[in-house]
Amino acid sequence: MENAKPRIGLTMGDPAGIGPEVTLKALADDGVRDAARVVVYGDYDHLTSVRDRLGLGVGLRRITALDEAAYGDAVDVVDFDNVGTFEYGDLRAANGRVSLAYVDRSLDHAIDGRLDGLCNAPIHKEAINLAGSEYAGHTAMMADRTDTERYTALLTDGEINVTHVSLHIPLSEAVERITTENVLDTLRTTHEALPEVGVEDPSLGVVGVNPHAGDGGVIGSLDDEAVAPAVERARDEGIDAQGPFPPDSAFNRALDDHYDCMVAMYHDQGHIPLFVNSHVDGGGVGATVLILGFPFVRATTLHGTAYDIAGEGIAAPDSMITGITLAADAVRQRA
Amino acid sequence: MENAKPRIGLTMGDPAGIGPEVTLKALADDGVRDAARVVVYGDYDHLTSVRDRLGLGVGLRRITALDEAAYGDAVDVVDFDNVGTFEYGDLRAANGRVSLAYVDRSLDHAIDGRLDGLCNAPIHKEAINLAGSEYAGHTAMMADRTDTERYTALLTDGEINVTHVSLHIPLSEAVERITTENVLDTLRTTHEALPEVGVEDPSLGVVGVNPHAGDGGVIGSLDDEAVAPAVERARDEGIDAQGPFPPDSAFNRALDDHYDCMVAMYHDQGHIPLFVNSHVDGGGVGATVLILGFPFVRATTLHGTAYDIAGEGIAAPDSMITGITLAADAVRQRA
Repeated sequence: MENAKPRIGLTMGDPAGIGPEVTLKALADDGVRDAARVVVYGDYDHLTSVRDRLGLGVGLRRITALDEAAYGDAVDVVDFDNVGTFEYGDLRAANGRVSLAYVDRSLDHAIDGRLDGLCNAPIHKEAINLAGSEYAGHTAMMADRTDTERYTALLTDGEINVTHVSLHIPLSEAVERITTENVLDTLRTTHEALPEVGVEDPSLGVVGVNPHAGDGGVIGSLDDEAVAPAVERARDEGIDAQGPFPPDSAFNRALDDHYDCMVAMYHDQGHIPLFVNSHVDGGGVGATVLILGFPFVRATTLHGTAYDIAGEGIAAPDSMITGITLAADAVRQRA
Repeated sequence: MENAKPRIGLTMGDPAGIGPEVTLKALADDGVRDAARVVVYGDYDHLTSVRDRLGLGVGLRRITALDEAAYGDAVDVVDFDNVGTFEYGDLRAANGRVSLAYVDRSLDHAIDGRLDGLCNAPIHKEAINLAGSEYAGHTAMMADRTDTERYTALLTDGEINVTHVSLHIPLSEAVERITTENVLDTLRTTHEALPEVGVEDPSLGVVGVNPHAGDGGVIGSLDDEAVAPAVERARDEGIDAQGPFPPDSAFNRALDDHYDCMVAMYHDQGHIPLFVNSHVDGGGVGATVLILGFPFVRATTLHGTAYDIAGEGIAAPDSMITGITLAADAVRQRA
């Protein structure tokens, strides 16, 4: 069955951040190696140096092209040999440039089917912008390169799944964005996307907007006037949606196994419960982001480059581990 | 040391809800009996009937006035003998009326110092309004009766503590409420209130408003223009406040022991992490609400009457247990 394991490409991310560290720590995880055949896109010397400093027992094997990958005990590293002198936590164009190169090449291989999926360690938005990229991050770049217009970010820690009506906009605008049409659109895209992670006809728990989901109109009318009609129309279309539920306890419904996916009305409503539920003792987070709707499976860490702790050896690899294993699971679901 | 235990009055709440059940289950908890001397305000026959149906091994002792309390192995129940025929889940004035009577009498005893604190099982807002009460709940009633103008609701599960800039208002209004003055006011009241639970000069972690706390102004200006100046002014006043932090990971800072209390910008930002962090397997929540600023210690459950599951015997008593034990802890801190 070894050859049946999904091939997941990992990009080591910004060398000044925690990306190389969490990538290596993930490679040292038995669950990861059991779940997938992995190949790393990065700088071989940088990775071996981080590995040795952290004392991680991960065998690495330098290759220059994906064709050479052996997927053996030592992990194949497609070596870009592009990290020169650097300092942890240093925001600079060079680091943006090298981290984009890893993504770019792995993306080629995912598009042409030589990889089944990708899991990307964090790059730094400002660093890639300094390097001349106009993208806000990995996802926009991949959407552009694959001509994908509709895609869905699924936050998941394997226990709670969440999609959002809006993401990176101010809260005041996010509230304005909560219309029946927009909520219905998110319910549809979520319903269409979940089969990619193996959940056909998913049950969707819709989170309300206002405290107590408006408490029958006493605390605002948006839940009754925008969210509830969207849920009703979705049900008319055959989507298994329920709610809106009082936001405070809504995610406990997911923990009680009532819903395959929660639909949050705004960024932090959906992000906070995932961070808390997958909190890692000592610092860190275990949840990951799966981007559904691409021609290949794609995961990324929920955390960023964490320049403030880079190089200290204390970064938790849990989000990277979850990303790789859930990406591999999703590949199996697609097969 | 038996006599040194704090005396905590419990009210059994709305008889048609889960209040009597969680009260009895809490009385069956060794930690509760170790932490406090408890006396229950309610209907003796109703309580014994619920106890027998649930098969709980809790001795109850009927008394008619607090003077008769023995605080022995059997729990003293100040019997109001006021619950007649009833149905679980039935919203009615009679249930509102009887549940208010328990609160009213126990409040007399807390005010005159014969009790050190109260922990209230849930009443139903609409039921008490049907019964002619103008109050929105326990807290407003107690504030009025004790002439307390400034009080602070502290949500806590013993691990994360949270206060809020606003509570039961629509999210759009909550965003408007986030001004430097209002945030600063919440930082001050939180700073003043925490010593009541034994934390002098508390470290406050201030949660941002917008995703990524605005990401340097890219996602809205409110974090930079309203929240950050409030944190700065608080620090000028000697308050140990830091932030604003990106909301998604802010509560993980509390879990990592960095902050004594998190200050949330709106209801669900602070409630969601407490619900998720104190989720009880099988359904339920372990967090409680302490109202600080009253002349006595006061706790209440984070959940409501849960009419939908009342009578089924499946209600989790964790919030009630946390409420009683943390109220007892707070009494010891005051002593």
